[in-house]
Amino acid sequence: MNTFGQLLRVTTFGESHGPAIGCVVDGCPPGLAVAAEDFVPDLARRATGRSRHTSQRREADVVEILSGVHEGATTGTPIALLIRNTDARSRDYAAIADSFRPGHADYTYWQKYGRRDPAGGGRASARETTMRVAAGVIAKKWLAERFGVRVRACVSQIGTHLPQAFDWDAVAGNPLSWPCAAQVAELEAAMDALRKSGDSVGAKVTVRADGVPPGWGEPVYGKLGAELAAAMMSINAVKGVEIGDGFGVVDTPGSEHRDEADAAGFFSNHAGGILGGISTGQPLLCHVAFKPTSSLRLPARGLDVEGNEVQVVTTGRHDPCVGLRAPPICEAMMALVLMDQALRHRAQCGDVGEVRPRIPTPP
Amino acid sequence: MNTFGQLLRVTTFGESHGPAIGCVVDGCPPGLAVAAEDFVPDLARRATGRSRHTSQRREADVVEILSGVHEGATTGTPIALLIRNTDARSRDYAAIADSFRPGHADYTYWQKYGRRDPAGGGRASARETTMRVAAGVIAKKWLAERFGVRVRACVSQIGTHLPQAFDWDAVAGNPLSWPCAAQVAELEAAMDALRKSGDSVGAKVTVRADGVPPGWGEPVYGKLGAELAAAMMSINAVKGVEIGDGFGVVDTPGSEHRDEADAAGFFSNHAGGILGGISTGQPLLCHVAFKPTSSLRLPARGLDVEGNEVQVVTTGRHDPCVGLRAPPICEAMMALVLMDQALRHRAQCGDVGEVRPRIPTPP
Amino acid sequence: MNTFGQLLRVTTFGESHGPAIGCVVDGCPPGLAVAAEDFVPDLARRATGRSRHTSQRREADVVEILSGVHEGATTGTPIALLIRNTDARSRDYAAIADSFRPGHADYTYWQKYGRRDPAGGGRASARETTMRVAAGVIAKKWLAERFGVRVRACVSQIGTHLPQAFDWDAVAGNPLSWPCAAQVAELEAAMDALRKSGDSVGAKVTVRADGVPPGWGEPVYGKLGAELAAAMMSINAVKGVEIGDGFGVVDTPGSEHRDEADAAGFFSNHAGGILGGISTGQPLLCHVAFKPTSSLRLPARGLDVEGNEVQVVTTGRHDPCVGLRAPPICEAMMALVLMDQALRHRAQCGDVGEVRPRIPTPP
Amino acid sequence: MNTFGQLLRVTTFGESHGPAIGCVVDGCPPGLAVAAEDFVPDLARRATGRSRHTSQRREADVVEILSGVHEGATTGTPIALLIRNTDARSRDYAAIADSFRPGHADYTYWQKYGRRDPAGGGRASARETTMRVAAGVIAKKWLAERFGVRVRACVSQIGTHLPQAFDWDAVAGNPLSWPCAAQVAELEAAMDALRKSGDSVGAKVTVRADGVPPGWGEPVYGKLGAELAAAMMSINAVKGVEIGDGFGVVDTPGSEHRDEADAAGFFSNHAGGILGGISTGQPLLCHVAFKPTSSLRLPARGLDVEGNEVQVVTTGRHDPCVGLRAPPICEAMMALVLMDQALRHRAQCGDVGEVRPRIPTPP
Repeated sequence: MNTFGQLLRVTTFGESHGPAIGCVVDGCPPGLAVAAEDFVPDLARRATGRSRHTSQRREADVVEILSGVHEGATTGTPIALLIRNTDARSRDYAAIADSFRPGHADYTYWQKYGRRDPAGGGRASARETTMRVAAGVIAKKWLAERFGVRVRACVSQIGTHLPQAFDWDAVAGNPLSWPCAAQVAELEAAMDALRKSGDSVGAKVTVRADGVPPGWGEPVYGKLGAELAAAMMSINAVKGVEIGDGFGVVDTPGSEHRDEADAAGFFSNHAGGILGGISTGQPLLCHVAFKPTSSLRLPARGLDVEGNEVQVVTTGRHDPCVGLRAPPICEAMMALVLMDQALRHRAQCGDVGEVRPRIPTPP
Repeated sequence: MNTFGQLLRVTTFGESHGPAIGCVVDGCPPGLAVAAEDFVPDLARRATGRSRHTSQRREADVVEILSGVHEGATTGTPIALLIRNTDARSRDYAAIADSFRPGHADYTYWQKYGRRDPAGGGRASARETTMRVAAGVIAKKWLAERFGVRVRACVSQIGTHLPQAFDWDAVAGNPLSWPCAAQVAELEAAMDALRKSGDSVGAKVTVRADGVPPGWGEPVYGKLGAELAAAMMSINAVKGVEIGDGFGVVDTPGSEHRDEADAAGFFSNHAGGILGGISTGQPLLCHVAFKPTSSLRLPARGLDVEGNEVQVVTTGRHDPCVGLRAPPICEAMMALVLMDQALRHRAQCGDVGEVRPRIPTPP
Repeated sequence: MNTFGQLLRVTTFGESHGPAIGCVVDGCPPGLAVAAEDFVPDLARRATGRSRHTSQRREADVVEILSGVHEGATTGTPIALLIRNTDARSRDYAAIADSFRPGHADYTYWQKYGRRDPAGGGRASARETTMRVAAGVIAKKWLAERFGVRVRACVSQIGTHLPQAFDWDAVAGNPLSWPCAAQVAELEAAMDALRKSGDSVGAKVTVRADGVPPGWGEPVYGKLGAELAAAMMSINAVKGVEIGDGFGVVDTPGSEHRDEADAAGFFSNHAGGILGGISTGQPLLCHVAFKPTSSLRLPARGLDVEGNEVQVVTTGRHDPCVGLRAPPICEAMMALVLMDQALRHRAQCGDVGEVRPRIPTPP
Repeated sequence: MNTFGQLLRVTTFGESHGPAIGCVVDGCPPGLAVAAEDFVPDLARRATGRSRHTSQRREADVVEILSGVHEGATTGTPIALLIRNTDARSRDYAAIADSFRPGHADYTYWQKYGRRDPAGGGRASARETTMRVAAGVIAKKWLAERFGVRVRACVSQIGTHLPQAFDWDAVAGNPLSWPCAAQVAELEAAMDALRKSGDSVGAKVTVRADGVPPGWGEPVYGKLGAELAAAMMSINAVKGVEIGDGFGVVDTPGSEHRDEADAAGFFSNHAGGILGGISTGQPLLCHVAFKPTSSLRLPARGLDVEGNEVQVVTTGRHDPCVGLRAPPICEAMMALVLMDQALRHRAQCGDVGEVRPRIPTPP
C-alpha cells in the first residue's frame, strides 16, 4: 500500500534520513514530454528552507529520471524518479529515538511493526510527499496538454485567519500561498511570533481544478469525491476533507443547495463539481484541514519504549505550520486522481463520444 | 469499481427499481456464524417507511443467503446476499425520465455513459446502500467476536440543531438516532414542519469504534483515515469527512492538539484514534456531512436531455433529511474498512505479536 | 479472489448444491445489447446431461439478469446474472462427506479453511465454470461487435487420440467438439467403452482468437500470455497451458522459431500471436491440458477427516472426460482476458491512433 | 502492470541500456534480516558473462538498498533496490533501431505505444528479470526462515537433450544448471557447436518447492497453479507452463492420475502439489518452456518502421540458449507467488490453526 491509483499507479519509497527517496509512475500514456527540469518549480514550492516560515532543512531535491523516458518523451513503460537525500541531520533524533513523540506516528509504527526507523520520522516523515509532488508534475502536465485541465491550490485559513479577498493570482506571490496580498505582511508577522513562541498552528488548503470535462469518476465506490478524499487524507497531518460546500451543507436547505441551471449554465456550484461521484464540468473544489505540527520545542508528556513516563522536546528542524507547504502536495494528489479517473473513464466509455446537451459552466 | 476493499471485498449490484439488489462478500474468514436474521436489525434502521420522517417506500428487505454459508457458518468462499425489490413505483419517474433533476446524478450519468436508467435514480439511488449495510453486518459481527470492537453511529447535527447532551444510550430510542432524548420532541416537530414545507435539510453523522487495537492501518496511501474518508465519501450525499477534531485542527495550537499521555493513558483524543494512518487504540472518531435531499416538491430550474429549459418537480417518495437513515450505513462502512485493515494487518504483521508498551486509553 | 480481471471484472459465487450460482460483471461499456437468450447457446455447450458422454445432472441453467441492463442494453453499471440450481442430488455425497476424495480439493479445502461444504464438491465443483461461460458471452459479444474478434475452442486430444484433420467447421457438429468429423464415431465408441470401464481420461483443448488487433497486452507482468495462462489454469482440472508452439519450442532452433515476415505478411505463427506479451495481430493460439476426472466408481485409497484409511467410491454423476465440456469455458476465459486487455489498452494508449506499418497476417 | 503480487508487491522499472534498473518490494513483514550481499549469489547465477555459454555483457549487478531496511532488518516499509547499468553497448543496436527484429517485441511495442526505446531491447530485455531475481531473494529468505520452504530450479531439457539422471545436488556444479553431471561435457560441446553455428535452441526448466504447508492458494481465480502459470509466463521467452504432470495428464487414466494415499502418506504426486488451487503439502512442481533466442547472427527477413522489407542481422551480445540462465528467475517467481499466497492465507485463515489430519508427504 505504498502504491496509489488504479491505472496511473504511483509507488513511492524512501525514508526521511535514508539514502534516497523515489517513486515509480506506471501507466502513463506514451508520448508525453518529460524532463528533469519539469520537476523543479513544484518541488521548490514544497521544499523546506526557502522561507523563514518553514523548517530549515535544505534539500537539493534533484530529480534523476531512471527509466520510462526516451528521447525526451514517455515510452509507456514505468517512469522511475530518484532524489538523493542530502541534508539529513539524524543526530537531532538520537535523544528521542526511544521515546514516542506525542501527536506523531512513533507509537503507532511501533505497535504495528514492533520496530521503527526513528531518524527524521523515517517513512512517516513529510519528506515522503516530495515524491507525490514529483509524480503530480507528470499528471498535471498530461491533464493540461490533453484536456486543458488546470489544478491549483492555496492556503485558505491559518489558525483563525481567513482571507479577506480571494485572488488566485496573488497566491504565487507570497511565501504563504495566500490568496489575499493585502494580508500577507500581517500574517508573516503572526507566523514570526508563532515561531518564536515554539508553538504551531493548523491550516486549511483549498484545491481547485478547472477544465475537468463532465463524466469523470465512477459512480459507487470509485466516486471522484471518494478518491479525492482518500488522496487528501493520505497526506500527512490531514484530518478533514470537504467537497464543495462540505460541512456547510448540513445547515443548508435543499432548495438552495441543489445547483439549478438554465441554458446559460449552472447558477451555482455548491456541489463542488461532483454529482453522484461523477464530474459535472464545473470547477472541482476541495478543502483540506492540516493539523498543527506536533514537533515543538515546548515539552510534552509521553512514554518511552520501556513504558516510562518522559518529557519529549523536539529539537530538530520543523515547520510551525505544515499547511503552508501543502498546496503543491494537494495539487499533486488531485492531479493524480484526475488523471487516473480520466484513463479509467476512457477505458470503459471510450466509445460514448460527445454527449449532448452539455450544461455550460460559467466561471 | 462496484467493489470495495482489498482483502474483505464487497461487490454490490442492483438498481433502485430493478428486480433485485445484492452483494458478494469475498474474503471473510471461515467459521463465522451468519444467518438471515442477523441482517434484520440494521436493515430496519436503514429502511424507509418506518417513521414519518423518511420516504414512505416500504421494502421488505428480506435477505436470501445464496452462497458461502454452510451449516450456519461461513466457509471462506464468497457470501452472496440477495434482496428482491418489492415496492418500486416507477410511474413517479415517468414525468422526469427525460429531465436532469438538479442536485442529482442524472446529468452526470448521462454525460458519462450516454444513457441512464431513470427509474428511482437507477444505480445512483440510496437503495444501493442497503447492501452496504448487509455486508457491514458481517464485518461488525466478526470485529465484535474476534476483537471486541463495537461500531456505533448517531446523528449529531440536523440543520442548525446541535445536541445539548451526548448520550450514546439515547440513540436507539428515537427515530432520529439523536444522542439527546430531551431534544427529540422539538426536533420531530421541526422535521414535521420541514416536510410540510416541501424543503429538505442536511445532517451530520458521528461514527465511533471502540476497542480497535493499536496497529491497524497502513502508513502511506492505505492510511486508516484515508480509507475511512473514501468509505464515507462513497456514500450518496456525503460532502465532508473529518477524523477526530477534523477542521477544528485548523485553529488549534499544536501544543494543545497533540495528545499527550502518561502511564495512566492518553489525556485526550484530538487525533480521533489515528496517528500516521495507524490506529492508536483510542476510540476511532469520524464525522460525516450529508447534504440535503435534492428531490423536492418545490420546482427547480434545469434542462432536459434535448437541452431545453424545464421546471423539475419531484413527486416520488423522498426523505426530507437523508442523514437520518445514514447511521447504519456509516457504521457499515467503518466496519468494512476496519475488518479489511485487520486482515491486511495480520497478513503483514501476523508474527509481530504483542508489542509493549501499550498506552492505556481511558474511556 | 473470486474476482477475475482488472477493468472488466467478473466476480462469481455459489456452490454446486447451494440455492444458486451467479456472477457480477463490472466495467462493461454502456450500450451493448444483452438479453437472457444470449446466454443459452454457450451454456448449453457447457452443460451436463446433453449427451451420454457427460454427467447426467440436468440443470436448466436459466439466466436471470438482475441489474445493469436497461431497455435491452448495458448501462455501464454492474451486470448481475443469477442461475438457480435445480438438479442437485446431495445424497450422492452423504457417504463421502467425511472422506477426502483422492485427486479432489476435499483435502486442501479442509486444510485451508478447517471446514468444507461437501455437497457436490461445494465451491470446488466445475459448476462454478457455468458463470464464467455466462460472463464470457458478454465479452465475446463486445469483442465481436467492437473489433470483429472471434473466439473458438475445440477438443484437440482425448487420451492418445489426435485429430487426423483440423476443420473448425466440424467442431459444432459433434458432441465431442472434435475438429475431424471422420473420427467421431470411433471416438464415441471409445468414450462408451471408457464410461463402462468406470475410468476416465484427460483431454487437450485448443483455443483460438481471430481478429485481435496488434498492441493488446501489457509488456511485463500483465503479458497477454501470462493472463491467458492464469485464466486457463484457473479452470478446474487444468494442469498445463501453452501459447503457440508451447513446449514444442524447446527443441526448435531459433532460426526456425522466430516468425519472419515480408510485406505480404508473417510466414508462420510459432509465437501464437504474442511477442513480448503483446498481440501481433496474428491468430491467438493457446492449448490447455485437462486432467482425467478423479471421481470414479473404481475405489481409491484415501483418508477420512479422522485420519483413518478408507476406500473412496464416488457414486455421483460425473464426466468420464471433463475436457469435453471445456471448450466454451476456455473460450470464455480467453474472451474475458481479451476484453479486459482491450479496455486497459485504450486507457493508456487511446491517443496513439493507427500505427504504421501493420504486418499482414495471412490466414 | 509493472507490479506483481497482491500483498507482497514487487514493482520493477528500468530499461536494458538506461541508467539503472530497480524494484520496490512492498508488503514484506518487518524483522527480516536483509543485506546487500544476500543478493550476490542469485544475481550471479542469472548474470551474463560468467560462462562462454551466455552473452558476454558483464554487469556488476551491485544492489543498493535505498529504503525499508534499518539496522539490518526490514521495517515493514517499502524496500527499494537499485542496480546501475554499467556495460550497456548501445551502438550494437544502431543498425536495427528502425527494424523490427523477427521473434522480438520490437513490432508489438511499436504497435502498442507508437514508439519504442530500441537500445538493448529497452524494457523488453531480459535485463528486467534481474530485479525479479533480487526481489525473489527476499521472498526465498522469508519462506525459508518462517516456514522452512526451499525453492530450487534446474534446466531439465536443452533442445532434444534430456537428463539421464536427476540429481538436484549436481545442478549447482555446472554452468548449465543440469541435473546429471555425467552429461555436462557432452552438452557443453553441443552448446559450443550451437554458438558457432549462429543459431539458438530452447530449454525446459523445472522448478520445485519443498516444505510448502497444505492450505496455501485461493480456490477459484487465485489458484496457486494459476498464479504460478502467470508468474512463469510473464518471464521473457516463456511459451508453456505445466503443473505436476502437465500435458502428460491428457493420456493418463483417472485411476492412475489421482494421487491416492494411506496413513503413511501420498503414493504419488501427479498433481504437482496442488489440488483445487490449494497446496497439498507435497513438493510443488512446475515445468517451464523457454523459446530459443531470436537474436541471431543468421539473417532474418522482416520489415522496418517504414514498412520496407529488410534483412535483420543481430550483432549484439546474446545467449544461444536463454533458458540456461532462467533457473534463478523461475525460482524467484515461484518464491514471490508463494510468499504472497502465504500472506494472503494468514490474512483470511489466520485463526484456523493446525488442521488434522495431515497426510504425510514422503520425499
